[in-house]
Amino acid sequence: MPVAPLPKALLFDVFGTCVDWRTGITKAGEALGQRLGLPDTNWAAFADAWRAQYQPQLTSVRSGARPWTRLEILNRESLDTVLADFGLQQVPATERDAFNLAWRHLLPWPDTVAGLHRLKTRFILAPNSNADIALAVHMAKFANLPWDVILGAEVAQHYKPQPEAYLRSVAALGLTPHEVLMVAAHNEDLVAAGAQGLQTAFVARPLEHGPGQTADLHPEHAFTYIAHDLHELAAQLGA
Amino acid sequence: MPVAPLPKALLFDVFGTCVDWRTGITKAGEALGQRLGLPDTNWAAFADAWRAQYQPQLTSVRSGARPWTRLEILNRESLDTVLADFGLQQVPATERDAFNLAWRHLLPWPDTVAGLHRLKTRFILAPNSNADIALAVHMAKFANLPWDVILGAEVAQHYKPQPEAYLRSVAALGLTPHEVLMVAAHNEDLVAAGAQGLQTAFVARPLEHGPGQTADLHPEHAFTYIAHDLHELAAQLGA
Repeated sequence: MPVAPLPKALLFDVFGTCVDWRTGITKAGEALGQRLGLPDTNWAAFADAWRAQYQPQLTSVRSGARPWTRLEILNRESLDTVLADFGLQQVPATERDAFNLAWRHLLPWPDTVAGLHRLKTRFILAPNSNADIALAVHMAKFANLPWDVILGAEVAQHYKPQPEAYLRSVAALGLTPHEVLMVAAHNEDLVAAGAQGLQTAFVARPLEHGPGQTADLHPEHAFTYIAHDLHELAAQLGA
Repeated sequence: MPVAPLPKALLFDVFGTCVDWRTGITKAGEALGQRLGLPDTNWAAFADAWRAQYQPQLTSVRSGARPWTRLEILNRESLDTVLADFGLQQVPATERDAFNLAWRHLLPWPDTVAGLHRLKTRFILAPNSNADIALAVHMAKFANLPWDVILGAEVAQHYKPQPEAYLRSVAALGLTPHEVLMVAAHNEDLVAAGAQGLQTAFVARPLEHGPGQTADLHPEHAFTYIAHDLHELAAQLGA
């Protein structure tokens, strides 16, 4: 067990770590396809393709090539691209707007809600996601994620893994980096958080990318905590 | 009863509307005085004097005379002023820092927590206070205020009653002003919110300023909702 002092607040990655975006987007796509009578589409592949637009879109903001733009707007733009790639240009704009809201209606992993409630008794909990505030708060309301405060990209005005995305969330809590624990299912996110002095917790989510997932199955660094789910993390933290 | 469409989110003034700052600061002062063996001090008058520094301090930021500064820093500066005014220069810096945290440890009015929990089942709840994020989240954790998201001055980078303080909180929720209800015990706050298109709810807090309170005892305008406490507001909103 780690000898680090107990953190005062826990920051969470959300997409993949707290919620199952791939299943949610796949099912929303299937429902759309049925409703509109679309030709056979592999909606899991569609979800992967939509998610694959994520990093290039964020990079356009991180690089300064475009001004601050919140994630729901980037997602909506990406949707147009992916629909075209899949030959689904006939989907009308109102349906596209509604499909984009599927990111607000993702379901948590089985341990997420109970684990967060357990952790909430002892720590301040916040998402530190690239989701904007509106997306994060509507998702939390839908999925019963009991955040104490919504932090992340929009509050920091920077996208992870930029240092400001961690440091401004820490500052917004009035804490120092070593008083805050970043929880994620992604090695890169934790390495970036650790580089800014935050404590780190790896929680594996081996189904985030579907049955063929190859990355992020294991912690690749000496993180402060390593747990199989949020219950195990809560136990390690005495919550 | 109003004919306005039901709001999707409720924004709350906090100091005075949700928590009893005057009693909390008075008691924290009394405890400090006992601990340090300070000469007789009227700590209720001290609380009033500390609070009286609030608007002038905010005005210095609103006017642009000083750059964005979060409320806890302004409160700490004001504390030095008020201690000097009360002849209490001997209070050491560490005690001043601790006293300033009394604003994080204020108690809610008797109906606040249960009323908010009731409203939370149906609406997104957020403070829209001049408190900064750290102050608001620590206060919420201490007093069990079940916010879905912390909004307000720091997110908006403007202090109420500036229009941006309302409009940026609304925008952060991805909503339009008429979809949001501002709840406050202060006529001025609601007039400013209403001028930006928000719905408004007046909840009288006749003891905010102590037994001799003369202002804000009654709604002075045609607000969307008028209630005696948060339970009555919840009933009016069907929650």
